[in-house]
Amino acid sequence: MENAIADANMPWPVNAWYVACTPDEIDGKPLGRRICDQPMVFFRGQDGAIGALEDFCPHRGAPLSLGFVRDGTLVCGYHGLAAQCSGRVANMPGQRVGGFPPIRSFPVVERYGFVWVWPGDPALADAASLPHLEWAESPDWAFGGGRFHIACDYRLMIDNLMDLTHETYVHASSIGQKEIDEAPVRTRATADEVVTSRIMDGVRPPPFWQMALRGAGLPDDQVVDRWQICRFSMPAHVMIEVGVALAGQGGYDAPDAVKASSIVVDFMTPETATSHHYFWGMARRFAVTDTALTDSIRAGQHKIFSEDLEMLERQQRNLLDYPGRRLLLLNIDAGGARSRMMIDKAIAAETSVNAHPVRINASSATAP
Amino acid sequence: MENAIADANMPWPVNAWYVACTPDEIDGKPLGRRICDQPMVFFRGQDGAIGALEDFCPHRGAPLSLGFVRDGTLVCGYHGLAAQCSGRVANMPGQRVGGFPPIRSFPVVERYGFVWVWPGDPALADAASLPHLEWAESPDWAFGGGRFHIACDYRLMIDNLMDLTHETYVHASSIGQKEIDEAPVRTRATADEVVTSRIMDGVRPPPFWQMALRGAGLPDDQVVDRWQICRFSMPAHVMIEVGVALAGQGGYDAPDAVKASSIVVDFMTPETATSHHYFWGMARRFAVTDTALTDSIRAGQHKIFSEDLEMLERQQRNLLDYPGRRLLLLNIDAGGARSRMMIDKAIAAETSVNAHPVRINASSATAP
Amino acid sequence: MENAIADANMPWPVNAWYVACTPDEIDGKPLGRRICDQPMVFFRGQDGAIGALEDFCPHRGAPLSLGFVRDGTLVCGYHGLAAQCSGRVANMPGQRVGGFPPIRSFPVVERYGFVWVWPGDPALADAASLPHLEWAESPDWAFGGGRFHIACDYRLMIDNLMDLTHETYVHASSIGQKEIDEAPVRTRATADEVVTSRIMDGVRPPPFWQMALRGAGLPDDQVVDRWQICRFSMPAHVMIEVGVALAGQGGYDAPDAVKASSIVVDFMTPETATSHHYFWGMARRFAVTDTALTDSIRAGQHKIFSEDLEMLERQQRNLLDYPGRRLLLLNIDAGGARSRMMIDKAIAAETSVNAHPVRINASSATAP
Repeated sequence: MENAIADANMPWPVNAWYVACTPDEIDGKPLGRRICDQPMVFFRGQDGAIGALEDFCPHRGAPLSLGFVRDGTLVCGYHGLAAQCSGRVANMPGQRVGGFPPIRSFPVVERYGFVWVWPGDPALADAASLPHLEWAESPDWAFGGGRFHIACDYRLMIDNLMDLTHETYVHASSIGQKEIDEAPVRTRATADEVVTSRIMDGVRPPPFWQMALRGAGLPDDQVVDRWQICRFSMPAHVMIEVGVALAGQGGYDAPDAVKASSIVVDFMTPETATSHHYFWGMARRFAVTDTALTDSIRAGQHKIFSEDLEMLERQQRNLLDYPGRRLLLLNIDAGGARSRMMIDKAIAAETSVNAHPVRINASSATAP
Repeated sequence: MENAIADANMPWPVNAWYVACTPDEIDGKPLGRRICDQPMVFFRGQDGAIGALEDFCPHRGAPLSLGFVRDGTLVCGYHGLAAQCSGRVANMPGQRVGGFPPIRSFPVVERYGFVWVWPGDPALADAASLPHLEWAESPDWAFGGGRFHIACDYRLMIDNLMDLTHETYVHASSIGQKEIDEAPVRTRATADEVVTSRIMDGVRPPPFWQMALRGAGLPDDQVVDRWQICRFSMPAHVMIEVGVALAGQGGYDAPDAVKASSIVVDFMTPETATSHHYFWGMARRFAVTDTALTDSIRAGQHKIFSEDLEMLERQQRNLLDYPGRRLLLLNIDAGGARSRMMIDKAIAAETSVNAHPVRINASSATAP
Repeated sequence: MENAIADANMPWPVNAWYVACTPDEIDGKPLGRRICDQPMVFFRGQDGAIGALEDFCPHRGAPLSLGFVRDGTLVCGYHGLAAQCSGRVANMPGQRVGGFPPIRSFPVVERYGFVWVWPGDPALADAASLPHLEWAESPDWAFGGGRFHIACDYRLMIDNLMDLTHETYVHASSIGQKEIDEAPVRTRATADEVVTSRIMDGVRPPPFWQMALRGAGLPDDQVVDRWQICRFSMPAHVMIEVGVALAGQGGYDAPDAVKASSIVVDFMTPETATSHHYFWGMARRFAVTDTALTDSIRAGQHKIFSEDLEMLERQQRNLLDYPGRRLLLLNIDAGGARSRMMIDKAIAAETSVNAHPVRINASSATAP
C-alpha cells in the first residue's frame, strides 16, 4: 500500500462516507464498482461482514469482482488467490501466502439499508459520522428507491436537486407546475447544511401528488398548500422534504391527517470526474404498509429521474465543450452554489498538507 | 460574447454561408447541430423568422436544443430562460432579464429551400453573397435531395466530387462505366470557380441514366453522348452538370428534346475537422412534374452516396493513421487540388490580422 | 519507402514471422488486418502467390483492402490503381505508372495452413526460420482451429497459456480440476524455448478429456494420468502438449493405444499494444479421420477460449488503470516471466543501433 497526497484535481472529498451499493447487490456474488475514481470490489464475507477492497488482484491484476465468495473469502477467478474482508490474503493454491502484501481495503459500514464506504484515510473513518436517517429505522416510515448511473459530474446533480425550478420544464407531466416558477426560493446555510425552501400555497396538486393524496386517503381534486425544503449535507446528500396539505390547514405544519408528505432521498456517489452513481428514493410517513403504493411511487420517481438524466448528461457534454465559460448565477442557483462552497472547503482542507500531511491514494501507486 | 482570432488550425473559412439545415428540420421544434465545430441551435421564431444561436444556455450550460419554442422564443428546457432570434433573453420565470448577456447569434438566411448560416464575423455577413441557384427558383426545374452525416474531413468529399473517376469503381452498378476512366479530364480555374469536365461520346448509358432517359420519355437502349462538368465554388459547394444526349445530336449542347440533363447538387458543411454534414440532391430540367421520378432519383442517389460514405470514412481513418504521408497528385486530382487552394487562400485571408484584425469565435471564450 | 529506427515502445520484435491469417480469409477477396500496429492488406495474386502490402493506396490514402483482385493484381476500389504482390504499381486508368513509387510490401509465406508475415526488415526475412510443425504436414495428425480478436496485450495471453493453473478457475466446467492447483509446475528454458510442465497422476478426467477418450475409443470413466507441457517459442507461439493415459501405463510415455494426446496450438499476433489476433487450435494423433470429433473439439475449445477472453480483456483494463503497479511473481508465473525475458531480449537486439543500424518502419514516414 502506498502513501500519497490526495489528487487536488478530483472534485470531491475522500474522507467521507459515500453510499457504495445496496445489500442486495452483493447477495451471493461480489460487486465491482468505481467510486471516487478508484475501482473497488464489495462482497459479503465471514459472519455477514462486508469487505470493500481494491478491485485488483495483487497476483496478476485481474479484477477480483470477476471471482466468487467461498468460506467468507473473495476468491480471484483467475488463479484462486483468496482474500479476507480485511484485505489479508487467506490462501492460494500451492502458495505460502504469509508474505503476500495485503490488498488495500476501505472502511465500510452497513446501515440504513445501504453499504457505505470511506474512500480516504482509514484512520479518519468513524461510523459515528454517518448521517442519522430516522426514516430508515422508524416503523412510522416506508421507503422505496433505485439507482442510476449518470454520465455527469455529481455536482450537476446537486445543483439540480437544490433548485427545483426545473420541475416545471423537465417534469412538466408529473410534478411540474407553473407556480413553482412563481414562488420565490429562500436559501440559508449553517455549518453542516444548506437549505433551500419554496412554499406554494393554494395550488392544484400535479399528477404525482394527486396519486400520493389518494394513497394517503385524501381527496385529489382540491386546492392544496405545497412545500419543497431541500437540505444538502456533506459529502453529497440531498434530502428534500416535499408534501401537500389540504389548503389552509397549516401547510408544512398541518396535522398528519390532512397532508401527504415525504422525503425525497438523494445520495450522489462520484464515479469519475464526469460520472456518478445516483441512489434515489422516497421515504413517506403515510400509508406505510401499502407496498403497492411504494411500487407506484418508485415507478413515478424512476420516470421523473430518467428525464433529469438526459438533461444532465447533455449539460455535462456542453460544459466540456466550453471549459472556460462563465455561467450565470441567479437567486435560484444559491442552493447549489452554497453546497459547492461547502464541498470546495472540504477538499481544500484535505489537500492542505498541514491538516492531513500524509494520505493514502491508490491511484498514485509507486512505479516498480 | 468574446472577441478572438480565428483558430488557424480549423480547415475551413468561417466568413461564408454554409447550409445549416432544411426548413422541415425546424418544423415545430428546435434543431441542435454542430457547424464549423460550434454547437448551434436553429428554430423558427417570431413571424417565421429563423434564429441561429449558440446551443448553450447562459444560465447553466444546458443545450437550448433540448427546449421548445413558445411565442416565437426558444425556451430552455431546464429552467425556462427564453431567448429571441437575436439572442436577446426575452424572459425567465422569477427573473429580471434586462441585464442578462445576449446569447451569441449567427447570421442566418432562408433561401432556395435551405437555411444558410454564417459562422464567422456577423459584420461581414451579406445575404447578397449567397450563390444564385436558378434551379431552386425556376418552375422549369424539379429538385429532390437528402442529407448524410459523414465522418470525414469535408475536403475529402470535395476531392471525391471533383474527380468522378471513382464512379467506375465505387458506383460500378449504377453510374460507373469504363469509359469514364478512359476519357481525359480538363480542369480550369477562375477567381470564383474550379471546373473539371469530362466528355464521353458514343457510350452505352449505365443503369442510372437508362432510368433518367425513360423518365424523360427517351429510349434507354441507344448510344449516347455523356458529360460531367463539376463546378466547385466557395466555401464548399459542388454543382455537377451531368447528362446524356442521344449520340451525335450535339451532346451537352443538344436540344432538350433529345437529352436528359441535370445538376448534381452538393453542399458540404463542416461539423468537426474530421466530419461533415453532406446535403445532396439532383435538380433536373425534364419531367419536372413527375414526383415519382423525383423519388426514384432520390433513392438512386441515396444508394450511390452511401457507397461513397464507407470509402470516405475509411480513407479518413487511414489518413489519421499516417498523418505525415505524402499522397500522389495526378491529373485527375487537379479539380480537388485547385479547390483546396481556393479554400486555403480564404482561410489565410481570415487569419491574417491585417485583413480582419478582430474576429468573434465562441470556442476561444475567456476563462472566468 | 522510408527508413527509420524501430519504435522502442512497441512491445514486440518485428523481425519475426507472425501468423497473419488463414488462406480461406483471402479466398477471392483481399483482407485488411492490422499487425504490429501496421495496417496491412493480404491478397492472392498471380499464380497463387500471396501479396502483403501496406493497406494504404499511395494515390489518395484509401484502404486497398476495400478493393478487389483482378488478373492477379490488387485494384484500389476508389480510383483503380492496381498493384502487384511486390508492391509495384501495375497500372491505373489513364495514368503512366512507371514513376509511381512502390507500395510497401512485407515478406510473406504460406505454410502449414497459415499465411505468415514478417513485419520488419525484409532483408532479414528467411522462410527457413519458420518453426517446423510436424502436426501440420503429417497424415498421422488432424487439426482444427479458429481465431479470436482479443483486446489485450498479446503477452497477457502468453502468461495465460504458460500457467494453466487458471484452468481450475476460468474453465471449471470443461478442463479445470482441483488437481491442477495441487500439482507443482516445473519451468526450464533453453536458448529457443521456455517449457513449463505439470504432471497429474491418478486423476479423474474432466469433461473435455472424457469426450477425447471416447473419441479415441477408450473408456471415459477410469482414472488417468494427465500431463500439460507448455512450450513457448519466439515470437509468440505456445504449443501445449496435453493428454491423458489410462493410469499406470506410463503417462506421457504410454503407448498410443491407451492414451488420448494432442497439441494445443496457439499463435498470438500483436495488433496494437493492447490487442492481438489469437489463432488457436488443436492437433491430435488419434481418430484423425473423424471430422465430427474435430468439430466437437473445435467447439469445446471455442467455448474455453471465450472464457479466457473476458478475463484477459478485464485484466488489461485494470492494468491500464494502474500503470505503475508492481505485480506478484510466483512460481506458477515462471513460464510467462521467462517467455517475456526472451521477448524483451529480442526487442532490445532489434532496437540496438549496432545490431541493425537501419530498419524500415512505415509508421515513421517522413512528412511532406
